Amino acid sequence: MPDSLDELNARLLRFARERDWEQFHSPKNLAMALAGEAGELLEHFQWLTESQSAELDEDKKRQVAHELADILNYLVRLAERLDIDLIAAAEEKMAINERRYPAEKVRGDARRASEYPD
Amino acid sequence: MPDSLDELNARLLRFARERDWEQFHSPKNLAMALAGEAGELLEHFQWLTESQSAELDEDKKRQVAHELADILNYLVRLAERLDIDLIAAAEEKMAINERRYPAEKVRGDARRASEYPD
Amino acid sequence: MPDSLDELNARLLRFARERDWEQFHSPKNLAMALAGEAGELLEHFQWLTESQSAELDEDKKRQVAHELADILNYLVRLAERLDIDLIAAAEEKMAINERRYPAEKVRGDARRASEYPD
Amino acid sequence: MPDSLDELNARLLRFARERDWEQFHSPKNLAMALAGEAGELLEHFQWLTESQSAELDEDKKRQVAHELADILNYLVRLAERLDIDLIAAAEEKMAINERRYPAEKVRGDARRASEYPD
Repeated sequence: MPDSLDELNARLLRFARERDWEQFHSPKNLAMALAGEAGELLEHFQWLTESQSAELDEDKKRQVAHELADILNYLVRLAERLDIDLIAAAEEKMAINERRYPAEKVRGDARRASEYPD
Repeated sequence: MPDSLDELNARLLRFARERDWEQFHSPKNLAMALAGEAGELLEHFQWLTESQSAELDEDKKRQVAHELADILNYLVRLAERLDIDLIAAAEEKMAINERRYPAEKVRGDARRASEYPD
Repeated sequence: MPDSLDELNARLLRFARERDWEQFHSPKNLAMALAGEAGELLEHFQWLTESQSAELDEDKKRQVAHELADILNYLVRLAERLDIDLIAAAEEKMAINERRYPAEKVRGDARRASEYPD
Repeated sequence: MPDSLDELNARLLRFARERDWEQFHSPKNLAMALAGEAGELLEHFQWLTESQSAELDEDKKRQVAHELADILNYLVRLAERLDIDLIAAAEEKMAINERRYPAEKVRGDARRASEYPD
């Protein structure tokens, strides 16, 4: 059974090829497009309080869902171009984070990563 | 069989709970963290040409894989907090894009989305 | 008397030329570098509450000042490459905003710009 | 004679106060707004080649000028809220960069800052 990210990747690749858009999809350009979408995501939240940000109405929630979709789509495209297995990378990074931030040491303390002493 | 994103979501949720970090994970804050990681991704590519960006050496590729992992992890956390189904949103957005950019009309032309006449 | 931004521009241009770095300073690349620095700025604030963000200690404030400096420096470089007068552009944009958001109409209401009816 | 950034700051402050928008202008929120604008800037350049990015037509150039204006405006607001002198910070950062990247050592080599050995 194919994984949902694999299916999404196949659909995105077909979409790009049918439009002859692979020529624009260098990793550099895709990274820019992804960061552009992350900027749009921010704009939805910038004037909300943290608690307002957790209680979006249906219309706003649908807009945010589409921003998340755009980010995921560029992320999957970028991973495809660079031949990176996204899920494997995420699992590897989680293993690093689990070692780096031991629960008993960092509980309730969320500093910037660079501020933790190694 | 659980989907890989579901498994990742469960692991991320457990990670946050064990550290009492859910208190920091408002959608607003997670959107900032995601955009911060997108900024780090850009830094890997900003001085490379497009073709250099497609030919990363192994060390650089592993660093980029970790940035993609960070982005995916915040994306999954954000979707969990907002009760958004990432894959469903991505499929919905693809259906919109397939209608919005008909292959025969946009072939080889990748303007900014806002520049296409509706 | 030269304006401070003009002086900064001259210093940045000399810095780039002495290092033969103008070759890397295409507008595209400078836009990426600027957005990368904006991402670093976010990382300082992402886990802080809004009120904590207004009460930085001296060390953190100095770090944030350097991020703002990086952003300003890339902004000035980008304006130089595109032959854009930053101050004139900012004044022009302020005039647009003053017309677009009449004080009596938007007082105390800070929605996303795109959400205001025209 | 007042400096142009000082005048811009005064105009921005008046704009925010007349609309009772200072309440939304926490440093955290302003950092998000700035990064959101940096994302919009990226979108203008993401599918252009580096050389195309240096040859914008007048219409596109005016749009980009407005994005730069938005970024400058949020930068000035943020500096005001944090009581940071932007020009002094930029000069201080330039002095650091001039020491950190000696011309004779880095000429023609623009790696990511973190990749230079200290």
